[in-house]
Amino acid sequence: MNQNKTEYDPQTFNGITFHDVTPAFADGSDTPVAYLERCMATVEAREPVVQAFASLNEKTAWAAAEASTKRWKEGSALSAVDGMPVGIKDLLETKDMQTQMGCKAFEGNFPKNDNTAVLALRQAGAIIFGKTVTAELGGNHPGPTTNPFDLARTPGGSSSGSAAAVASGMMPAAIGTQVGGSIIRPAAYCGNFALKPSQGGINRGERQTTSMSTHGVHAASIEDMWQVAIEIASRVGGDPGYPGLIGPMKTPSSLRPERLIILQTEGWAQLEDSSITAFEQLMEKLERKGITLLRKNHHTWIESLESQIANASHVCSMITAWENRWYQRNLVDRDPNGVSERIKGTLEKAEAMTPEDYQALLLKRGNARAAYATLSSLADAIITLACPGPAPLWEGDIPGRSSAPWPTGDPVFNYPSSMIGAPVITIPMMAVNHMPLGAQIMGQRGEDARITSLARWVYENIESTVVR
Amino acid sequence: MNQNKTEYDPQTFNGITFHDVTPAFADGSDTPVAYLERCMATVEAREPVVQAFASLNEKTAWAAAEASTKRWKEGSALSAVDGMPVGIKDLLETKDMQTQMGCKAFEGNFPKNDNTAVLALRQAGAIIFGKTVTAELGGNHPGPTTNPFDLARTPGGSSSGSAAAVASGMMPAAIGTQVGGSIIRPAAYCGNFALKPSQGGINRGERQTTSMSTHGVHAASIEDMWQVAIEIASRVGGDPGYPGLIGPMKTPSSLRPERLIILQTEGWAQLEDSSITAFEQLMEKLERKGITLLRKNHHTWIESLESQIANASHVCSMITAWENRWYQRNLVDRDPNGVSERIKGTLEKAEAMTPEDYQALLLKRGNARAAYATLSSLADAIITLACPGPAPLWEGDIPGRSSAPWPTGDPVFNYPSSMIGAPVITIPMMAVNHMPLGAQIMGQRGEDARITSLARWVYENIESTVVR
Repeated sequence: MNQNKTEYDPQTFNGITFHDVTPAFADGSDTPVAYLERCMATVEAREPVVQAFASLNEKTAWAAAEASTKRWKEGSALSAVDGMPVGIKDLLETKDMQTQMGCKAFEGNFPKNDNTAVLALRQAGAIIFGKTVTAELGGNHPGPTTNPFDLARTPGGSSSGSAAAVASGMMPAAIGTQVGGSIIRPAAYCGNFALKPSQGGINRGERQTTSMSTHGVHAASIEDMWQVAIEIASRVGGDPGYPGLIGPMKTPSSLRPERLIILQTEGWAQLEDSSITAFEQLMEKLERKGITLLRKNHHTWIESLESQIANASHVCSMITAWENRWYQRNLVDRDPNGVSERIKGTLEKAEAMTPEDYQALLLKRGNARAAYATLSSLADAIITLACPGPAPLWEGDIPGRSSAPWPTGDPVFNYPSSMIGAPVITIPMMAVNHMPLGAQIMGQRGEDARITSLARWVYENIESTVVR
Repeated sequence: MNQNKTEYDPQTFNGITFHDVTPAFADGSDTPVAYLERCMATVEAREPVVQAFASLNEKTAWAAAEASTKRWKEGSALSAVDGMPVGIKDLLETKDMQTQMGCKAFEGNFPKNDNTAVLALRQAGAIIFGKTVTAELGGNHPGPTTNPFDLARTPGGSSSGSAAAVASGMMPAAIGTQVGGSIIRPAAYCGNFALKPSQGGINRGERQTTSMSTHGVHAASIEDMWQVAIEIASRVGGDPGYPGLIGPMKTPSSLRPERLIILQTEGWAQLEDSSITAFEQLMEKLERKGITLLRKNHHTWIESLESQIANASHVCSMITAWENRWYQRNLVDRDPNGVSERIKGTLEKAEAMTPEDYQALLLKRGNARAAYATLSSLADAIITLACPGPAPLWEGDIPGRSSAPWPTGDPVFNYPSSMIGAPVITIPMMAVNHMPLGAQIMGQRGEDARITSLARWVYENIESTVVR
């Protein structure tokens, strides 16, 4: 077998989980220190190739694991994630590590604050394991991270390191952020579960610049995914003005959907036959379980939504470009060589916009949200692909040629949920050519717990699909 | 006459205006350099007592005035505020001055970025004159600024320096920010006009932490107030996700209201007889002009709103305390002696809150917003006092005693518009005991231009009220 590849099979692949070891912490047959040792061993074995970490918090992590071990021994664990090693995307501030954002201009940046999510995780006893690589400033200029199943391919972005660290078994969960497709897509390329909550669901702390970004969770199991999200939200709530993620303190039980809407999005036209085949086989299995599937031609409301999101890529990219314009202008003025040509290209487009252009984009977004809300009576949730095929090959920019547009993959299947502010979960249930291909389930705003239940039922009751 | 006092009379008081000098810039009979000289002379005369500035941008200001003079001479002025000296509240980042936020922990803080509003003003050719004193972190722990009409009294806060600089004629306009009552109240104590736009109306740039704060404008004339606001919003728009302030590029013409609602708010109970007399005399003058005035007992919708905002002070204070909790915790951890006991007291209250407490407060806020929206068919706007009496005396905290709760005055009349996200304008039309007492006009969200027209009509057609 090629040393650079590991064949992925969703039916047999297992990442590292945490929710199922805490009983052993409680009875003393396992400890957070031993758990961290296992994670560290995987890091040592895989990190030289995967390159998921921007910083590793070795000393502080061991101290936190020892403190957690003591708490479990004394029966005073702080939460269900006490002792869990969690990676933090390097966009979020951490008081004990630099925050370099995958950006030259932020080399050595060390604000010594904890982002709200980091603060909540520490309060819950989790181990802040390290900072994971982000594409530059959460955009699409890639960092060094490779896909754990094929190092010639991207892990996706911008939460590249979080996705790859979980997929390679270095940790059970990691924090990502999404403004376009930066949580859901890398999870889909890496075979992870991931939750991008309803807009405003997890308090972003200092990261309030854009109106469509959220913090979210990558995990190797749906249980750990939910548990990390709810432990954070139950401590620090949502963004200013939002109620925040609401749901049970344990992963919601599975719930069979009656009806699902298949959304095509503008991404459908890009799909290769193998990806369509994998997805349609999955849909057939759902139908065989008696679940009704609705498509574009089944109801005018679905057709209307498809039409409202037909240029979601453009609308979302330009909204975010405008919102990032001001801090990026300051950054470029301060350090002209500190950012990539990709960022400069986006800034140039943003600086050609007026407030009226932005108002027009907000109107389109508002219309899409209204169209989406109508679907709640038609079905329990939406299902579609989470990415337009398996992770693409990426060999780096070629000097002298213009930059490839989507080195970390195209977020075309992710813009709709970002645009709408809808909660969405990546489910790892397909493989194409031995690489992961994620599906996603989207709900109405605030239905985060409900789609977790639906995703759980689908994952537990439907056999995965493998296309070679 | 007492050296420390200047008797204020709204019928004769005139601050320094800008909109009426630009024709002289255009015909060469006056210049931005000469205008800045006049402002500088006032600064020299008044600043030792008023103490409005945190930093004065002398060198850069002169260079900007010269560049503006050249543009006016060449007929290439960048905007209607080209050459206008504007003060910037010291919470907003400026690339050429420190941003110290009235807080020991931020002494020497120099991020070298321009806040969006500052960037827009520079693009419009305005002169960034200096940073004006803010109460600590925009809260209620006062800085050194005194009230220009009586140095024993507060200028109000937290936009203390902006209010006092305009009122003492040092500059025609200054930028403030409000989360509770920090724009409208100091303007009311200092005899300024001020606009707090609809929530999200002016892009706050890096200052997105709280869900009820806005940037706004203090000015000595309603024309300069509107002009500064629209020059900013037409360049950098509103907050992420908001359309931003919309309206004409020149101050809207005056518009006679047919019907006005008098809102009492929970502040009414605190009023002294002299303030009630001044306000009711103003109301009589409105009625004599044929304007219908509606009060609490005239319609159940008004009564319902009064009841929904009956504890606005508590709701607003606690929402903001929760939203500031995370950065303030980081700050206190980093520099325990760098913040006042007032901030620590607020943080302590915030840290006793849960996400559910915050959700309950958001529900109250949502209900107040719904009750407020019903009023649009009853009247053209709302009118009430902008502060609970003339600026109170303030001699500093007394060592050994607990801190006075409202050293910069009580925002009780300002919380409702902050809670609702409604646009509001301070109009300087009353005096009590030779001190200014502002009225305010509030509209529905997005009606910023409309209330500017209504405020203008009231100011131009109703004689001011003086109570001794």
